[in-house]
Amino acid sequence: MSTQVAQAAKKVGKQSLRFTNPAEIWSTFTVVGPMEGKGPLGDYFDTVLEQTYYGEKCWERAETKMLEEAIKNAVQKANLQEQDIDFCITSDLLNQCTASSFAARGCQIPNLGIYSACAGLSEGLILGSMALDGGFARHVVVGVSSHHDAAERQYRYPTELGVQRPPYAQWTVTGAGAIVLGEPRYGIRITEATVGCVQDLGIKDPLDMGSAMAPAAADTIQAHFDDFDRGPDYFDLIVTGDLARVGSVILRELLKERNIDLGERHTDCGTLVYDKRQDAHSGGSGLGCSGTVFPAHLLRKMAEGELRRILFAGTGSLHSPTTSFQGESIPTICHAVVVEVTE
Amino acid sequence: MSTQVAQAAKKVGKQSLRFTNPAEIWSTFTVVGPMEGKGPLGDYFDTVLEQTYYGEKCWERAETKMLEEAIKNAVQKANLQEQDIDFCITSDLLNQCTASSFAARGCQIPNLGIYSACAGLSEGLILGSMALDGGFARHVVVGVSSHHDAAERQYRYPTELGVQRPPYAQWTVTGAGAIVLGEPRYGIRITEATVGCVQDLGIKDPLDMGSAMAPAAADTIQAHFDDFDRGPDYFDLIVTGDLARVGSVILRELLKERNIDLGERHTDCGTLVYDKRQDAHSGGSGLGCSGTVFPAHLLRKMAEGELRRILFAGTGSLHSPTTSFQGESIPTICHAVVVEVTE
Repeated sequence: MSTQVAQAAKKVGKQSLRFTNPAEIWSTFTVVGPMEGKGPLGDYFDTVLEQTYYGEKCWERAETKMLEEAIKNAVQKANLQEQDIDFCITSDLLNQCTASSFAARGCQIPNLGIYSACAGLSEGLILGSMALDGGFARHVVVGVSSHHDAAERQYRYPTELGVQRPPYAQWTVTGAGAIVLGEPRYGIRITEATVGCVQDLGIKDPLDMGSAMAPAAADTIQAHFDDFDRGPDYFDLIVTGDLARVGSVILRELLKERNIDLGERHTDCGTLVYDKRQDAHSGGSGLGCSGTVFPAHLLRKMAEGELRRILFAGTGSLHSPTTSFQGESIPTICHAVVVEVTE
Repeated sequence: MSTQVAQAAKKVGKQSLRFTNPAEIWSTFTVVGPMEGKGPLGDYFDTVLEQTYYGEKCWERAETKMLEEAIKNAVQKANLQEQDIDFCITSDLLNQCTASSFAARGCQIPNLGIYSACAGLSEGLILGSMALDGGFARHVVVGVSSHHDAAERQYRYPTELGVQRPPYAQWTVTGAGAIVLGEPRYGIRITEATVGCVQDLGIKDPLDMGSAMAPAAADTIQAHFDDFDRGPDYFDLIVTGDLARVGSVILRELLKERNIDLGERHTDCGTLVYDKRQDAHSGGSGLGCSGTVFPAHLLRKMAEGELRRILFAGTGSLHSPTTSFQGESIPTICHAVVVEVTE
């Protein structure tokens, strides 16, 4: 028999949170690979690498170095020292989240590792906001990364094989991004959040992640609207993480069936990061996709006054090569945060 | 230039937290494999499987089923429904945390995936406590798992090969454990916590995880004592996660060098779970080790009045087979929680 349960003070509806003391974004730092640097957002990233090895012997070490630099530089840009940071929240795609762990080894900050695939940045921003709002921290850094070549050989084929990719495939972004959260100070705040449930509509093709993740995005965005009793017009922009072109179309269709019309208000980090001529097929993916596009492009637009309130809905595909070989379908998740410019 | 930074309200010292409204442990549920069932704690686990496949086609699916059952049964034992749970925090050892994601797919609870290897349970208890204390949740379930055969073939050799193991090797526990946290009600509370930094003293042998993790355990335990200005005699017992026999000796030595004598107050879940005759060499490891021994054995002792205050320090080895093949040493982490019986 279930007890009648009252709601937690900061919980809104079934899956959402409203922060009493919203965390502010104090600084960001992004490092991307050469291909991302040549893309339409190339000018906005803090560091663009000349080559994907970044002077290391293997791509996994390059990814670690990128993430460590993103974290350290974001802390420095916030005019803080590492010892001022209460928690470092990290995530990546490598097996056993090793880019995170090896990067955290280089920063002696209490570390909380998380994993929700490419929804890592939004999960990290939610947990960081909870830590600040709850009085557990004054400064948190969230750092995420992915590396195309390391991901490709781990998830798909030996990179050197050059296997042909279907047109709906996505290109894992080589990128690392870090965001420092602190108390209200500069004006861009994370005011609300919606935590996703794991969804699975039966997609089994691990190259078709956009189709697999679209239902999770639809579910979390709808839950957000339901919990707060609002619609798409509440936001200047609704930004998904890495649905790319294929998944974005499906998301809009799924929401239309539920009488939610995103109209022109939707964009996706995976469609923004590459030019169509860059042969990235459906678009970008990976933690480095929203991990760099959200801070370098969207937060910049907010700082410049072009956007005032956005819903950032990070999307993650929770499969592994093993589960795909074992014939499993792909569970997916989406976590969303509301980011607002406040005076 | 660094700003002079004040401390967050609930932060203590460099790495620790003191909860204002400590989370209480409402219920636990454990599922273990046949070998763990034959061990010295066999009588205390809720479910002991007759075979490691648990009726599934592969060990990975068996692990998923174990974790899903642990979560669902823990919720039921707390007299709650799934919709009463605000967050499900999950972790496991399989690549891309798939046991967690696939188990979470079966429970429509907002899911937060975490990863700090075998320190997953203590990280989950910390984040769950933060969610409750911060007013973000009324009930949280933390679920973790590992499976010997799935871990063996992922981290080491094909299970069927039967490769000889060095005497300091550990045996991954086949087990899943879930803990429901809620508001004060029954008397066993998580009152304080210490979040670990990633440590690495250069151990490169992935079979020697006890030696690799001991420095992280020493570091977090010392940080806890420093932050709260206390020593081992404050606790009835200091319990590490899975240092096993080899790592436990090193931990005590490392702390002795720093003038901290754990004496008879230290035990380790990895040394408790198997009988020496069970051929598990140094002892147990894996998220399922502390994930089942902590709830089934230690919390039972607390409920029976035998222990009143313990420090549970979960330990995690953050390597992957890829990083080991690439010649990297093993970064490790330890997160600790204080668990107390209160009237």
